[in-house]
Amino acid sequence: MTTNVLGYASTSAKETLAPFNFVRRDPRADDVVIEILYCGICHTDLHNVQNDWGRSTYPLVPGHEIIGRVISAGSDVKRFKPNDVVGVGCMVDSCQHCSACNQGLEQYCEEVPTFTYNSIDRRDKTQTFGGYSEKIVVNEKFILHIPEGLDPKGAAPLLCAGITTWSPLRHWKIGKGSNVGVVGLGGLGHMALKLAKALGANVTLFTRSPGKEQDAHSLGADNVVISTEIKQMNSVNKKFDLIIDTVPYTHELNLYLPLLSFNGTLVLVGFPGDLEPTLNTTPLIMGRRSVAGSDIGGIAETQELLDFCGKHGITADIEMIKIRDVNEAYKRMLESDVKYRFVIDMSSLKEMV
Amino acid sequence: MTTNVLGYASTSAKETLAPFNFVRRDPRADDVVIEILYCGICHTDLHNVQNDWGRSTYPLVPGHEIIGRVISAGSDVKRFKPNDVVGVGCMVDSCQHCSACNQGLEQYCEEVPTFTYNSIDRRDKTQTFGGYSEKIVVNEKFILHIPEGLDPKGAAPLLCAGITTWSPLRHWKIGKGSNVGVVGLGGLGHMALKLAKALGANVTLFTRSPGKEQDAHSLGADNVVISTEIKQMNSVNKKFDLIIDTVPYTHELNLYLPLLSFNGTLVLVGFPGDLEPTLNTTPLIMGRRSVAGSDIGGIAETQELLDFCGKHGITADIEMIKIRDVNEAYKRMLESDVKYRFVIDMSSLKEMV
Repeated sequence: MTTNVLGYASTSAKETLAPFNFVRRDPRADDVVIEILYCGICHTDLHNVQNDWGRSTYPLVPGHEIIGRVISAGSDVKRFKPNDVVGVGCMVDSCQHCSACNQGLEQYCEEVPTFTYNSIDRRDKTQTFGGYSEKIVVNEKFILHIPEGLDPKGAAPLLCAGITTWSPLRHWKIGKGSNVGVVGLGGLGHMALKLAKALGANVTLFTRSPGKEQDAHSLGADNVVISTEIKQMNSVNKKFDLIIDTVPYTHELNLYLPLLSFNGTLVLVGFPGDLEPTLNTTPLIMGRRSVAGSDIGGIAETQELLDFCGKHGITADIEMIKIRDVNEAYKRMLESDVKYRFVIDMSSLKEMV
Repeated sequence: MTTNVLGYASTSAKETLAPFNFVRRDPRADDVVIEILYCGICHTDLHNVQNDWGRSTYPLVPGHEIIGRVISAGSDVKRFKPNDVVGVGCMVDSCQHCSACNQGLEQYCEEVPTFTYNSIDRRDKTQTFGGYSEKIVVNEKFILHIPEGLDPKGAAPLLCAGITTWSPLRHWKIGKGSNVGVVGLGGLGHMALKLAKALGANVTLFTRSPGKEQDAHSLGADNVVISTEIKQMNSVNKKFDLIIDTVPYTHELNLYLPLLSFNGTLVLVGFPGDLEPTLNTTPLIMGRRSVAGSDIGGIAETQELLDFCGKHGITADIEMIKIRDVNEAYKRMLESDVKYRFVIDMSSLKEMV
């Protein structure tokens, strides 16, 4: 039974988001139909709406930080039943047989994962549409359980901002005694502070702007370093096992490399593009340091994150908006005027009917 | 008893190497006095002679691929006795109490290791002089055993070219089933081929110039890829767990990043400096790939390498020269006109007296 749904879409790179009616696919035997309750707003949504990366297909319904409630489950579905509170993140399918998929790291699928929106479904070749909508139909393998007791509103950003910082923290084995630096205090940065702290690390926020100390400390930072102050930077020389760099535009990395301990890694999670100014390799060679990248996270580690957040009571700090205010929220996001993630109350879609 | 020795030194950045008489320190209780038999020529020697890195102190006696025979051992020396064949590499001391030293990785000593030449001795604050000389006095902790049966001439380059490629092979856990790429076929590159192959990896040489296939195969390469041929490069997309980049000048890394498997690492061992053209981070993020650096190796892993080479009969391919031909050898090294490492027969110093 095909499902007609209302959502918000952009119809070209020049258009802002507006109401849009479309059809979800007929649920398959391994599909779950989900009523969407909340959807976080990610910077990626804006990039795709504006076609910043040149790969947008319109109409485009964004949204990949989805929290919902199960309406119905197909006959082969084993892990979900009606009324379960569930999450859907950035991916809804992958090849499921390559080396990456076999390791539960579907985000690095050698045949490229199927993304939650602006992607092509592997089976029926239709376009995928995201979470700025009433309902979504998803294969159960790509659906997450939201732990009981975890506030579903603040859990939405865990599906992208959360897992994007959790995955490198886990991959580089951060725990008690680790020293972690976080560059940038936005949606990703604030999650990195919370998660690194909860894992037992000593956490330092790097920021260009003074005045964020109090917020940073309350989010979990033990220290705040103003990255434009050379003395402050020198005081943390060779300190960090891992620096998570969440800055979403090109910026100077050479400042941070000497702050890594030997064997330390600076991992980029926010900026795909050309590094300007160019990287100087001397600190890499002199300390077996690495510059790495990391992209969201796999399904198994996303469930691990959600369970960890359920246990530790961790959610994102959010500002709830109605869907009609989404374009205004995009403007404010561009100005970093949000603490720290917008989440859309999808029940507000009903006001548009 | 102070030791007067003859060596070869440069007296300024503008001078070529010439005979030079100097004094070695009085041996301490934990020192070994070594008669130098052979000394390899490393590109670093030339950089230091020319003061390319702005940190040369003259007179400067280069040489850190030293093979010698023990003449005498101090009263506290336990591991060496007269007539032992021994090696000395790039370092002759370190702080021996920092985290790196405690892990046997003295090359990353937080207080900076004492290098074999152009460095200041930690105890008596005198300048260190390298292996282009008759004798050297070294703390036993920084002396290596050369396994019986290993040709000492071809073993000399193991102390720098060998360990510089061995250390990343071991750190990134290369073994049977691994895919290793090697960029550049010089002193370091030819050792990387031999060692990666002996560790059981499938090995690919990247080179800009056709015509090296036969040599590469005989050194251990399973495949040779011409890096300027896009088709050949595409044919090894996502293949490599580790690419060891031995190129000693700035060059294009962006070509190689897509050739790494997910979780793969490109490790720079030959070029400290600004990367031009600049790095594009997208392949890093999309595959959790890393660009890392690695610097020589620790004393324990150098002994491990020598023992491994003893067991597998691996030495460098060398061209033996007399000390009077060293300046000519430098010219040829600059033109890559050597297969694959010059080694000085130090007995030729006697001809200079």
